Amino acid sequence: MSSTPAPQGLLVTAGKVHTPFKTELLSAMASERFNNTPPKLIGILATKKDDARTYAEFTKKACEQIGIQFELRLVGEAREGLDGEGVGIDVEEGILEANDDPDVHGIMVYYPIYGGRQDQYLQSVVSPQKDVEGLNHQFLFNLYHNIRFISPLTLRPIPSSHLPTPLTTKTPKSNEEVVPEGTVKSILPCTPLAIVKVLEHIGVYNKMLEYGDRARGKVITVINRSEVVGRPLAALLANDGARVISVDIGSIVEFSKRPSTSSTTSKFNPHHITTPLPEFTLAQALSISDVVISAVPVASYKVPTKDLKDGCICVNVAGEKNFEADVRERSGKTV
Amino acid sequence: MSSTPAPQGLLVTAGKVHTPFKTELLSAMASERFNNTPPKLIGILATKKDDARTYAEFTKKACEQIGIQFELRLVGEAREGLDGEGVGIDVEEGILEANDDPDVHGIMVYYPIYGGRQDQYLQSVVSPQKDVEGLNHQFLFNLYHNIRFISPLTLRPIPSSHLPTPLTTKTPKSNEEVVPEGTVKSILPCTPLAIVKVLEHIGVYNKMLEYGDRARGKVITVINRSEVVGRPLAALLANDGARVISVDIGSIVEFSKRPSTSSTTSKFNPHHITTPLPEFTLAQALSISDVVISAVPVASYKVPTKDLKDGCICVNVAGEKNFEADVRERSGKTV
Repeated sequence: MSSTPAPQGLLVTAGKVHTPFKTELLSAMASERFNNTPPKLIGILATKKDDARTYAEFTKKACEQIGIQFELRLVGEAREGLDGEGVGIDVEEGILEANDDPDVHGIMVYYPIYGGRQDQYLQSVVSPQKDVEGLNHQFLFNLYHNIRFISPLTLRPIPSSHLPTPLTTKTPKSNEEVVPEGTVKSILPCTPLAIVKVLEHIGVYNKMLEYGDRARGKVITVINRSEVVGRPLAALLANDGARVISVDIGSIVEFSKRPSTSSTTSKFNPHHITTPLPEFTLAQALSISDVVISAVPVASYKVPTKDLKDGCICVNVAGEKNFEADVRERSGKTV
Repeated sequence: MSSTPAPQGLLVTAGKVHTPFKTELLSAMASERFNNTPPKLIGILATKKDDARTYAEFTKKACEQIGIQFELRLVGEAREGLDGEGVGIDVEEGILEANDDPDVHGIMVYYPIYGGRQDQYLQSVVSPQKDVEGLNHQFLFNLYHNIRFISPLTLRPIPSSHLPTPLTTKTPKSNEEVVPEGTVKSILPCTPLAIVKVLEHIGVYNKMLEYGDRARGKVITVINRSEVVGRPLAALLANDGARVISVDIGSIVEFSKRPSTSSTTSKFNPHHITTPLPEFTLAQALSISDVVISAVPVASYKVPTKDLKDGCICVNVAGEKNFEADVRERSGKTV
């Protein structure tokens, strides 16, 4: 009955997050590496779905703004009725052609096409040398195993214990991110990476901490454990030091960083471990979480805002609104 | 009202099909290649599900009969309550240990564990050097592209146009299956391969035809187009020359062999092409099919036997009975 409006959490939209990356890209494009030959990205559209076509047009516009050459190739169903050539090449052949074409530097495929396992098959058909989305099995494997650097020629992962000492002109500080000589960063899957960039933007990642450990101390609930978003995201955040509570229909599992003391006895690269939390409830998870990320592609699914910790950061990844309408009265920041 | 019983189709059970393979294995085990060191197969069991455990015990028994060393390793959920060691290794770490272990020659993982995409991720974690089930992405890719031979050391596929001439002491007949010198057969995914072996056993594959084309002239309906069974099976049969009608909820698609005349203009290895059949119905497909293979994991799903061609060969791949009870009155052979 009070007339004082409830305090509103800050709403952060993606438009503000991307600015530094655009600047970085423009500066890279202006560097010697790309003298007079802007890189070429191929978009492969294989469905008639409006969403996919809109996304493709959006990519084209974004590339044009920066100066990346973009070419959209229509294959399979997306070609139907366009010309009289009969059966054109299908999406897999479209990918193989782009893999083989020395003028093509990057490939982006608009999913979903068939959905599920068949799309996952196609993701690994894209050459890892050209996979800008980071969806090839090799990159997912590296994410799960916290392998951050690869040899660019062989794309072979380099476990942290075998990394060369970085050769830089200045001595790197321990909290600086330095790519060791002769290596490049392993490509992270695009959606989980975008969420990390959002969390960096709003200060969940603490730059004072050492690179690779900047989410330490944070409790993050991730709702959805699919192989497309939820599970790689939970692993990525845990590998960066967060305590992640992964919630899916039927089970709650904790992802946390393997203690570095145990890594000497383990043959594996230090990475996240998972522990089932059979007694844990969503309400308990929400009540202790600094960040809640929801990626449930169902309009009727709503995170109960009454259970959120005051000032919690809420990230909605689904196309649908996953939080109850009063979320901004409860949360500190909503993305 | 007639008292004459309806003619019954022959029932062929899997027990009869496997005999020649057992003989072949025993003879291979007795050869020089394996002198005194039988190969070692590791089974990795990660669930508490009874089906998976039963299947694991079945593998053990089959291996013991032949003289293959079999060791079952329990990981993750399958370990729970077994000992006081706390969090054991998970299935992925179990696979990585077996990949690295020089004493292990083959690896078999009992799926489903998580189901869907996460299981498919695990399939590609198994080293292709030890993948006895043929589920690694490389082998699926080879199946779809009709790449039959690989270099055993690099596991790199060898397109048919680059195959060396077979070096054999006798001149091979064109209808003989000869593995070119320096290559081995690419491993085919286990379930589709098992179905092909059944079709060979009952004479659907014609040995008088050239290897790689022995299903030519047959019309085969495959019901289910999943990435686990239906789609690889349809591609495999089409690559062997059959006209395959692939039926799934919502669409009917034909898989047929790319005409060899067009392969000169194509950059791709000659393999199946797919053509949507939007006007086609299941009843039409059944009415022209020599073989009907159903793999629908739903008890209520039944192939309407009234639409089957007389003498049709019916193969039930699902655990459930996919054909109506009177199937043997309609069909020639039921498997």
